[in-house]
Amino acid sequence: MLTPNEQMRIICKGVRQCVNEKELLVKLEKSYKQEEPLIIKLGLDPSAPDIHLGHAVVLRKIRQMQELGHQAVIIIGDFTGKIGDPTGKSKGRVALSDEKVKENALTYCEQIFKILDKERTMVRFNSEWLSKLNFEDVMRLAATSTVSRMLERDDFQKRYKNGVPIGIHEFFYPLMQAYDSVEIKADIELGGTDQTFNILMGRTLQKSMGYDQQIALFMPILEGLDGVAKMSKSLGNYIGVSEPAEIMFKKVMEVPDDLIIRYYELATDEHPDVIDRVKEELSNGANLRDIKFQLAKIITGLYHEEEEVQNAVSYYDMAFSKKTIPDDIPILLLDLEKDTVKDTIPGLIELGYIKSKSEFIRLIRQSGIQINGEKMNEEEMNSVLFNGDVIKIGKKRFVKINK
Amino acid sequence: MLTPNEQMRIICKGVRQCVNEKELLVKLEKSYKQEEPLIIKLGLDPSAPDIHLGHAVVLRKIRQMQELGHQAVIIIGDFTGKIGDPTGKSKGRVALSDEKVKENALTYCEQIFKILDKERTMVRFNSEWLSKLNFEDVMRLAATSTVSRMLERDDFQKRYKNGVPIGIHEFFYPLMQAYDSVEIKADIELGGTDQTFNILMGRTLQKSMGYDQQIALFMPILEGLDGVAKMSKSLGNYIGVSEPAEIMFKKVMEVPDDLIIRYYELATDEHPDVIDRVKEELSNGANLRDIKFQLAKIITGLYHEEEEVQNAVSYYDMAFSKKTIPDDIPILLLDLEKDTVKDTIPGLIELGYIKSKSEFIRLIRQSGIQINGEKMNEEEMNSVLFNGDVIKIGKKRFVKINK
Repeated sequence: MLTPNEQMRIICKGVRQCVNEKELLVKLEKSYKQEEPLIIKLGLDPSAPDIHLGHAVVLRKIRQMQELGHQAVIIIGDFTGKIGDPTGKSKGRVALSDEKVKENALTYCEQIFKILDKERTMVRFNSEWLSKLNFEDVMRLAATSTVSRMLERDDFQKRYKNGVPIGIHEFFYPLMQAYDSVEIKADIELGGTDQTFNILMGRTLQKSMGYDQQIALFMPILEGLDGVAKMSKSLGNYIGVSEPAEIMFKKVMEVPDDLIIRYYELATDEHPDVIDRVKEELSNGANLRDIKFQLAKIITGLYHEEEEVQNAVSYYDMAFSKKTIPDDIPILLLDLEKDTVKDTIPGLIELGYIKSKSEFIRLIRQSGIQINGEKMNEEEMNSVLFNGDVIKIGKKRFVKINK
Repeated sequence: MLTPNEQMRIICKGVRQCVNEKELLVKLEKSYKQEEPLIIKLGLDPSAPDIHLGHAVVLRKIRQMQELGHQAVIIIGDFTGKIGDPTGKSKGRVALSDEKVKENALTYCEQIFKILDKERTMVRFNSEWLSKLNFEDVMRLAATSTVSRMLERDDFQKRYKNGVPIGIHEFFYPLMQAYDSVEIKADIELGGTDQTFNILMGRTLQKSMGYDQQIALFMPILEGLDGVAKMSKSLGNYIGVSEPAEIMFKKVMEVPDDLIIRYYELATDEHPDVIDRVKEELSNGANLRDIKFQLAKIITGLYHEEEEVQNAVSYYDMAFSKKTIPDDIPILLLDLEKDTVKDTIPGLIELGYIKSKSEFIRLIRQSGIQINGEKMNEEEMNSVLFNGDVIKIGKKRFVKINK
């Protein structure tokens, strides 16, 4: 087992804020002496989206702590989910059936165990304890906070100021989350910076109920591949943890140069010493492409078998590396925004790459045509092309689309 | 049974506000046709003070409705009482034990049945239904109101503005009271004007849960004997419903002239026609003392047997009427603020009323000394006297204290 100070270094890597480090060290020292793992809490909403590297930031941090010997407890907020929005006004918060909640939880767990160590993870549903509270218990819980304290929360404050109604029941979502910490005796709770209010409320409640306060670890929000916005599926700037190795590898290669270290810190489990070396190499003018290649191998390796990673590397080399794509490939100018793959045929014939439409179709059937490194099929003949798309014909012929 | 319109007149007598009269008439018409009594709700705090005519305003109104054939349901807020203030910060709201709550309720009921008709009153404790609610039920209840709606309540608004903490649990006191109305299917709820927010919340909740809305009857706050401040025990301007007939009679005689009609309306069950006649007499310049004498007899008669009232009248006549107290009685000047009954002895001897201290003590033992119409005993020899106190020695000798 690593010493408390060595553990501190790993735990604090990439963390945006820790409340607070002194208390964390005390907990680590006690755990070290008594050989008792700390309890790391993560609360998850059972709305079950596909997990991407943005979501994975907190999960990776937990995995790192599991490697240090600690115990993760994942709380599925099924009680909150079952209540939903009793006013029925918000479409986002529909009350979910017990079965739907269980089903979502399963899908979720399948994904999180791509990151977490199953042996050191306990999954619990908060309805287990919350549904047992009666009116008197709920009032005792309510009395631990005040109206002004609640209205300090960013979203509540904005809604109150703008006259957007806040249901009284909404004040209970932070309180429920805080109560979960009391119930499982959490030592550390993780979350994004958007969870600041709720996680600190856990500390307050634990204290007012006479328990040790949990440490709050706030992880930064990971920017997506555009380098600006938060990684999100709807913005298309994401890397999904379930994506095939080839796609994942290629996407990491698209990470903006200035985010390399951030991805190292938030999307890998590399030791701080390793990251320090990378920083040094970068400041010594190392080749950015090589560094990114390394990062892509590490990240892909976290979610895929060694063999798949090797295949992804070869594929990338073959399809995108300078070795295979010439620097000055011909440009094919398409006139209309809506022009599709089919519309490139006259140009390709003119370039002498193919002789006829039927040869093009034959090549497609033989998997001889690639668009941006992905083999295309006949149905994609009508797919619209975008500015900058690269079409590969056979083994060596390329053309770049200009619209 | 009186017609709905005749009932309306009696019910609305002295009422400050009715929300709303149109709906009340509909309810009365339905009750009249179906010969079903309306359910009149009154919620009581189990903190059990001694009831005075100020508290009695709502009770008298209920009694009037009972006379019209309706059913009263008194809700003892024991659930709220048992919760108290879970923060322990407010000394006023200590959590009460089950036994203490029951005991207080008994004391309370003993007093309210001096006014209400026992046959048409049901007493219920709200813990009966509130303690059965679970977290999910509580959230459904909470969702029927919003934070801004709650902060509209006068006291919450003031506290929020002045930075005085409001516990989240406090938002539930109005909601609990509203839920009581749902549970007992209240047709009418009564309260002082300070209950406006809570009683209207009952209407809102009934509506949102698909029930008929209750009518809110707000009774005015009765001024005390000083004619200015709200009647209250701590201000000493009250008439307690358990006070002896003599005291009660005398206190009513002290009601300021301009409050005679208000006391008729709020502290008696007299028919509106009778009150109209009194108003007429007053505007025709009737003797105020005679009118007040009548009022004192009516009010004392509401809380005492006919014989006791007669005794009180004779006693008042004897002790306070002009017939027995001469207009120009001698003044006895006492020097010091702390001078007591004992200190009047030298002056009384000087006046020739008594010969010695021992004669004074003998007179006391024979019940021959009265202070302000009340017989004094030997222990009161050391009671401090106040400016204006009247001492009666024997049957015909009076002296007035001046300090």
